[in-house]
Amino acid sequence: MLIALFPGDGIGPEIVDQAKRVLDALAIDGLTYEHGLVGGAAYKAVGHPLPPETLELAKRADAILFGAVGDPDCDALERHLRPEQAILGLRKELGLFSNLRPAKVFPELAGESALKPEVAGAIDLLIVRETNGDVYFGEKGFRTTADGLREGYDVMSYNEAEVRRIAHSGFQAARARRGKLCSVDKANVLETSQLWRDVVIEVSADYPDVALSHMYVDNAAMQLVRNPGQFDVIVTGNLFGDILSDQASMCVGSIGMLASATLNGSGQGLYEPIHGSAPDIAGTGKANPLATILSAAMMLRYSLGMPEQADRIEKAVAKALANGARSPDLGGAMNTVDMGDAVLAVL
Amino acid sequence: MLIALFPGDGIGPEIVDQAKRVLDALAIDGLTYEHGLVGGAAYKAVGHPLPPETLELAKRADAILFGAVGDPDCDALERHLRPEQAILGLRKELGLFSNLRPAKVFPELAGESALKPEVAGAIDLLIVRETNGDVYFGEKGFRTTADGLREGYDVMSYNEAEVRRIAHSGFQAARARRGKLCSVDKANVLETSQLWRDVVIEVSADYPDVALSHMYVDNAAMQLVRNPGQFDVIVTGNLFGDILSDQASMCVGSIGMLASATLNGSGQGLYEPIHGSAPDIAGTGKANPLATILSAAMMLRYSLGMPEQADRIEKAVAKALANGARSPDLGGAMNTVDMGDAVLAVL
Ligand SMILES: CC(C)[C@H](C(=O)O)[C@@H](O)C(=O)O
Ligand SMILES: CC(C)[C@H](C(=O)O)[C@@H](O)C(=O)O
Repeated sequence: MLIALFPGDGIGPEIVDQAKRVLDALAIDGLTYEHGLVGGAAYKAVGHPLPPETLELAKRADAILFGAVGDPDCDALERHLRPEQAILGLRKELGLFSNLRPAKVFPELAGESALKPEVAGAIDLLIVRETNGDVYFGEKGFRTTADGLREGYDVMSYNEAEVRRIAHSGFQAARARRGKLCSVDKANVLETSQLWRDVVIEVSADYPDVALSHMYVDNAAMQLVRNPGQFDVIVTGNLFGDILSDQASMCVGSIGMLASATLNGSGQGLYEPIHGSAPDIAGTGKANPLATILSAAMMLRYSLGMPEQADRIEKAVAKALANGARSPDLGGAMNTVDMGDAVLAVL
Repeated sequence: MLIALFPGDGIGPEIVDQAKRVLDALAIDGLTYEHGLVGGAAYKAVGHPLPPETLELAKRADAILFGAVGDPDCDALERHLRPEQAILGLRKELGLFSNLRPAKVFPELAGESALKPEVAGAIDLLIVRETNGDVYFGEKGFRTTADGLREGYDVMSYNEAEVRRIAHSGFQAARARRGKLCSVDKANVLETSQLWRDVVIEVSADYPDVALSHMYVDNAAMQLVRNPGQFDVIVTGNLFGDILSDQASMCVGSIGMLASATLNGSGQGLYEPIHGSAPDIAGTGKANPLATILSAAMMLRYSLGMPEQADRIEKAVAKALANGARSPDLGGAMNTVDMGDAVLAVL
């Protein structure tokens, strides 16, 4: 099975290296790896954030292990050349529509959250975010109003097929967890949300065992602070999912610990830490590789059909933490390689 | 000067009553009051959430003191008849584009927040939210795709004049506070945000004394949890402002304490608590009237030019809290009228 390694920008290469060491240590037969250029690194090397060879490799691969993209040197480039286009392009070109972002506190790290330990400690939720539609991919541009004013616009939309497939992802995830699904929208203002809500309700007929609720996005942002323990699975659109999943990850406290998967309908997936490229600490050895190592575990589980190997990695990370492994973001002084070593030592 | 009283739905009438008692106690010469029907209450009485007489009164008034709208009985109505249309319609028809939502912890209540007291205690920020444009007011509806699928759509847009006037609100607010303005957008994905960012930068030339920064909305949602004390003034669009201001209010802990103002260019304003109509506790006497009383104080300050009277109310609320006044949302047992009495007693 082929794994595409896309380290990207900033701390990306350092953290992907550690995840690769962990995968190597599992000595799984039949895994092969190929590297690809993405993001600012790809732009600097070949003039495009998602070069054709990278896209071709991504399509051929069974799974993609992704570092991070984002490079301040590229901020002034035209939009289609910016590093972010790599992740947006991969999601769209491979049909990676179902972004799974689990947020759960490691008991050892409950104190890291800005939330009270009893509030943070109760978090065990999964955000299922749609990543192929919404205002991200609608028609957009600049135009001039009738009065001669500059105007920027972006069309938000969802059709019933797009909502239906992500709703199924949400219901199935809820069924495999605690059986509660909260669909987040802004149906009191947006027609896109009204269609979303109507279709989610239609799909719910297939899942009588899952308890469905609906919440407006502004209320969801409040509830994620007030009592995040109330949520099991949240399903939502691309834009609201972007905001709420980052908020939820910060509620957990240690954003350096959180993994994600983005799947298409044929089992292919892109796996990445939810933190970004952190250019300010790139090359300093301060990056925490655990979120990327945990993303590799999600890859084994969701795209490679190896749940026991995934378990081994997740247990090793928990053990390393219990043994006191702490990078600077966790209040410690261990560097990126030390953190990788700490996981390897208990694997 | 004419104040329009729009109590609305749920707990709205109870809380507006208490704010009116406080205003009466100030015995200010020349204030007159007229009541108007809004929201579900207006729909039930006359068939529309924002009847023409209400709109006419709103336009005539110097300021509007608003309770809340929202009524579960009305959820199944067509969109243009739902209670929310009252607030959206007033914002649009009166050109109320600048929504000011201060969030600050009362020292006595720092423990109420789900955030650690040292994190919550540092919050002293103001969100300046645009409320006349964005995806709220663009073209929207249902259509059928080329494949015959149902699709919902909403056009997001801002033109330079809309951004410029709210940017001025933001810079002026920052100048009157600690001189820091953070503009929140999603310019890495949205052209609407790119135009927003460009125009905010243009306007910043008029405010060399204000330190301007930019933040993506997903990061802002994280930073409001991680370290909300870093913010002074946040300026943002209608949709992001809806989400972030509710999140910020919950970081403060006691959403029953937070007031808001929405101003147009001619000093008219709508003043309302940021909490909603809370139909579940309507009529039980559990509603906390302090956010509405504090909204009346904002009204005296921003629309009626009476800052000393505003101060008196704000000090009385702080004193009442210091004396132990606590409604159920603050962990106490005092009812709505008791809370009003507690403020009147120290006024
Ligand atoms: C980099 C950016 C375009 C991206 C997004 O908004 O989807 C990121 O924030 C994410 O959440 O993966
Ligand atoms: C009721 C609703 C339409 C409104 C909004 O989204 O603006 C409310 O959430 C608010 O923030 O005032």
